[in-house]
Amino acid sequence: MIKIAPSILAADFAKLADEVKEVEAAGAELIHIDVMDGHFVPNITMGPIVVEALRPVTTLPLDVHLMIENPDLYIEQFAQAGADYITVHVEACTHLHRTLQQIRSLGVKSGVVLNPHTPIEMIQHVLEEVDLVLFMTVNPGFGGQKFIHSVLPKVKQLSEIIRERNLPIEIEIDGGVNEETIVPCVEAGATILVAGSAVFNASDRAAALQRIKAAGERALGK
Amino acid sequence: MIKIAPSILAADFAKLADEVKEVEAAGAELIHIDVMDGHFVPNITMGPIVVEALRPVTTLPLDVHLMIENPDLYIEQFAQAGADYITVHVEACTHLHRTLQQIRSLGVKSGVVLNPHTPIEMIQHVLEEVDLVLFMTVNPGFGGQKFIHSVLPKVKQLSEIIRERNLPIEIEIDGGVNEETIVPCVEAGATILVAGSAVFNASDRAAALQRIKAAGERALGK
Amino acid sequence: MIKIAPSILAADFAKLADEVKEVEAAGAELIHIDVMDGHFVPNITMGPIVVEALRPVTTLPLDVHLMIENPDLYIEQFAQAGADYITVHVEACTHLHRTLQQIRSLGVKSGVVLNPHTPIEMIQHVLEEVDLVLFMTVNPGFGGQKFIHSVLPKVKQLSEIIRERNLPIEIEIDGGVNEETIVPCVEAGATILVAGSAVFNASDRAAALQRIKAAGERALGK
Amino acid sequence: MIKIAPSILAADFAKLADEVKEVEAAGAELIHIDVMDGHFVPNITMGPIVVEALRPVTTLPLDVHLMIENPDLYIEQFAQAGADYITVHVEACTHLHRTLQQIRSLGVKSGVVLNPHTPIEMIQHVLEEVDLVLFMTVNPGFGGQKFIHSVLPKVKQLSEIIRERNLPIEIEIDGGVNEETIVPCVEAGATILVAGSAVFNASDRAAALQRIKAAGERALGK
Amino acid sequence: MIKIAPSILAADFAKLADEVKEVEAAGAELIHIDVMDGHFVPNITMGPIVVEALRPVTTLPLDVHLMIENPDLYIEQFAQAGADYITVHVEACTHLHRTLQQIRSLGVKSGVVLNPHTPIEMIQHVLEEVDLVLFMTVNPGFGGQKFIHSVLPKVKQLSEIIRERNLPIEIEIDGGVNEETIVPCVEAGATILVAGSAVFNASDRAAALQRIKAAGERALGK
Amino acid sequence: MIKIAPSILAADFAKLADEVKEVEAAGAELIHIDVMDGHFVPNITMGPIVVEALRPVTTLPLDVHLMIENPDLYIEQFAQAGADYITVHVEACTHLHRTLQQIRSLGVKSGVVLNPHTPIEMIQHVLEEVDLVLFMTVNPGFGGQKFIHSVLPKVKQLSEIIRERNLPIEIEIDGGVNEETIVPCVEAGATILVAGSAVFNASDRAAALQRIKAAGERALGK
Repeated sequence: MIKIAPSILAADFAKLADEVKEVEAAGAELIHIDVMDGHFVPNITMGPIVVEALRPVTTLPLDVHLMIENPDLYIEQFAQAGADYITVHVEACTHLHRTLQQIRSLGVKSGVVLNPHTPIEMIQHVLEEVDLVLFMTVNPGFGGQKFIHSVLPKVKQLSEIIRERNLPIEIEIDGGVNEETIVPCVEAGATILVAGSAVFNASDRAAALQRIKAAGERALGK
Repeated sequence: MIKIAPSILAADFAKLADEVKEVEAAGAELIHIDVMDGHFVPNITMGPIVVEALRPVTTLPLDVHLMIENPDLYIEQFAQAGADYITVHVEACTHLHRTLQQIRSLGVKSGVVLNPHTPIEMIQHVLEEVDLVLFMTVNPGFGGQKFIHSVLPKVKQLSEIIRERNLPIEIEIDGGVNEETIVPCVEAGATILVAGSAVFNASDRAAALQRIKAAGERALGK
Repeated sequence: MIKIAPSILAADFAKLADEVKEVEAAGAELIHIDVMDGHFVPNITMGPIVVEALRPVTTLPLDVHLMIENPDLYIEQFAQAGADYITVHVEACTHLHRTLQQIRSLGVKSGVVLNPHTPIEMIQHVLEEVDLVLFMTVNPGFGGQKFIHSVLPKVKQLSEIIRERNLPIEIEIDGGVNEETIVPCVEAGATILVAGSAVFNASDRAAALQRIKAAGERALGK
Repeated sequence: MIKIAPSILAADFAKLADEVKEVEAAGAELIHIDVMDGHFVPNITMGPIVVEALRPVTTLPLDVHLMIENPDLYIEQFAQAGADYITVHVEACTHLHRTLQQIRSLGVKSGVVLNPHTPIEMIQHVLEEVDLVLFMTVNPGFGGQKFIHSVLPKVKQLSEIIRERNLPIEIEIDGGVNEETIVPCVEAGATILVAGSAVFNASDRAAALQRIKAAGERALGK
Repeated sequence: MIKIAPSILAADFAKLADEVKEVEAAGAELIHIDVMDGHFVPNITMGPIVVEALRPVTTLPLDVHLMIENPDLYIEQFAQAGADYITVHVEACTHLHRTLQQIRSLGVKSGVVLNPHTPIEMIQHVLEEVDLVLFMTVNPGFGGQKFIHSVLPKVKQLSEIIRERNLPIEIEIDGGVNEETIVPCVEAGATILVAGSAVFNASDRAAALQRIKAAGERALGK
Repeated sequence: MIKIAPSILAADFAKLADEVKEVEAAGAELIHIDVMDGHFVPNITMGPIVVEALRPVTTLPLDVHLMIENPDLYIEQFAQAGADYITVHVEACTHLHRTLQQIRSLGVKSGVVLNPHTPIEMIQHVLEEVDLVLFMTVNPGFGGQKFIHSVLPKVKQLSEIIRERNLPIEIEIDGGVNEETIVPCVEAGATILVAGSAVFNASDRAAALQRIKAAGERALGK
């Protein structure tokens, strides 16, 4: 099954509850929350306060993507605010194994993210500690970028490892996902797809979300 | 005249437009926006995306308080997002004079903030570059703190300098302001008062805001 | 009354219990513990583990001097390990007021330290938050230095402020204190004197400590 | 042959000489010294002063494990203090090759350490520069952790490379080593085992150390 | 064809124009410019001002090697100053893919550098974004080092990948290149060789450069 | 006597020897060398290599202005390269007293610089350790700025302190100095004036330098 996770970074921040409810009604299965600290990436976006505000608004899982330095210092705050997934960048974690253990110890699903250039060799020894691997198909924190196709071989590599080792890990892709790019993503093994402007900037958001999802389902069916 | 600047950090982030309109209708004169990066202070809150979302929602000036390291890297983003005031911490600015010039060069009013312990000696040479001096009466980034009375002598010191040198500088106070604490703030020379939970957590927000403002006006009248 | 605080940095680390008991028997009134992290100063020395080990060894107050960056992250560990005083550098504390409050909230006496060049203007607004002000008369973390006499006018400045404002603050001096240099220290207002090599490197440590103390008492009596 | 390296982090810091002599008498072959700076790991422990103090106390090799940022700045101090091995984290070394060369140029044996998640791909090009590879089987700097079994495949991988290329490298394991966990460690190729609480917290330390070692020797004999 | 890129770090900085013209006349094909910031490497050398000054002096490509932290902040300055190649360290780039895209977007050839210990796994996913891969055969920023032969297997590895995938990437080697060491470099696949003191410290620079190049051409011909 | 110190940042870096000789012949009394690391200021310029190259070219004192973080790490390199003055920013020095002592211990004249906003309170306790105080009248590292007149009261303040305490300290001003701005600088007490583009961009450099100097001498004579 394909799950679409709309990123509220593309939503109207003046009325987040409405925006979230709208995509929930349209068939979204997770709400993706992009946390940026202006240090790990050159943008500042939002923090635990947003997670806390959205928690009572939706029953969908809140999928918190930490694009921050020293995530260890903030994991507890995000867990308490109501995160269902907390995903950290391997490039930001000196003690990655510990960070993932900490997330799980708080009852939250743990995820690890790789920047477009980072090889999966860097996460091969923590696969038993993660519920989710997120692949960036744009460079995080920078706007106006195109889907980076050269990431897909990494996704396939991980899909095979997961199958061979029979690991219960979900694969998520974030960056430039739309009706066309979702096809190779799903073919490579992704089942959770983050969609930002492709959903929130559409004139008919529900239709847009459904078209993307349907394209993914078809790719999965092949 | 006393101006109340509600801080949206205490508002419901799921419906900021409504929250801002409510305090505008209640008599607020600025909207205070607390930007934290998790490095200068131990909390991450919001970034330019919030300023941009609120710009079409209100005609009130957006008063952006940067509790971030290296503010120079983000000033342009906040200006483009629609900030009317950008205020930076002297403790975060190695090249404070330049940072203030940069703010003004973008057509934005410039402010400088002092942490509770920081002496006004540190800003004595940039008073011609600022439109606003903000005094923290709690420690920024930490919640649930009480108003720090020992900051008030600094406010008086600056008021006198401003009067003597006839400088067009507004004095703002942020932290623990309520119906009681506003009195000595105004007596010390402040005319813009940030109010967070004292407004947004009140059962009748309009009444709360008006009571605080009235207390300030009375103190001013004395 | 003059109190001598031997610094265990000059002791034999292979037998700290014996060293501490020896100076306690010789009339020491505090044990000074120099914590260095290799970042705030170019040396790494010891951490909470040493405080914890010495706690059952002596009944003297453990006077912990943090020469570290971001002391906020470690204050709780040192408090739990048994520190009686925790002293932080103004040069290391962006949120000094909060840091001092945090120390006291843990039931520990709070201190603030100034490097030789740092003016007391930097601490004028936190004097109500401190139990101790420590003046460095050498540069912390660097070896082989001589007592810096030009620090003494700062000590006198603070003594006068303390007297005028009737504040319950102790003044401590650290660096190059011996039988001669203690005299102007005490005359300037210091009552706690850190002594390192002048005590631990002496052939008769008890005699050395007593001579230094006696010289201090005579200076006080004048 | 199996060598047990007791970590003095678990010893009584008030009487290190006694503690070290006790484990030396009990059959320890190295003394493991855990240096933490509060930046690379969230704990501060000890520095060159401890190495210097223990140097005259024992004839065992002092095995210094640097859990610090920028180790290049401190290698010389630890060498002069009497270290026999200096081991640095690959995660902390931008110029790892140079750092290892520097250690050897001071007449000290060079080691490199990998955090639990770090793949051995990261050290494949410096194997000719190292005398020792240390694998963390807990996350350094954090307390109360269990032995991480998923590290052992990495140990085997390196053992094979060492055998194939006939390299004179010792393999050491640090974290949660006891009578049970030593078995798979030795089977994977480790010959130096760090033991902390399993030795120092035992009622009969000599017996505990000997039992761990014997378990290791049996695993080796198989 | 073998190209020699003299590094002006070994030239006389008081008369760079003359130095550059001399090696251009002697047959150099690029001018290598070593930018160091004192943070990524322990030396400070030169910045955009040098690129700008040399631009009108020579028609050779200016090959700018950034040994700096956060290269993203300076790429535009170097491009505007006239760089033909800008090469960044994988160890310094959290968002390597983006950094390389940014270089190309400015019309400059993009390069990535690996420190001696860094495996090519780290760059496998950006090979389509680079025009040049530079291998360090000494540790950057440190003087007086010898050519590190253990880097050459990495060069061969990349050569094979480039051939297999038919990628238009040039391979450059920097560090200790001279008449002897150029032979295995060329055999491993390098075609651009940085030469510093081997050229600039020679009594007859033109002859030295020609001898090195000839040795490279012979190795290529084999 | 007024001394003009041309800053080679404004010179042609392709032929520094000629540039320096030209201004020496024109009556310059020091050569000002602006070292920037891209961290303390947002520009990278030059390092010890330039000092070393210019040392044999001129007999004028080389006046090295370090706009870098952690200057302690580089002072020895600049001293060995031939610096006559080394000047450090108070904003960059946690252990300012020590840094100044270190400069003098290497036989070099020590200077301290203040950014436009930094009050002289910050250097009041190190005046006995300095041979030179440098006031920035533009913000260092940023181009295209105008002379900041509001710095001059600080210069006067220091002049008076120097006179009262009879200290052998020279006062230097850097930033936007030309024929007009030199007048109030000299009136405020400066005797060394850095001139960049006002000299090097002039059609007749010798005449320009002499006019600036003459204007300064006249202001001194008043």
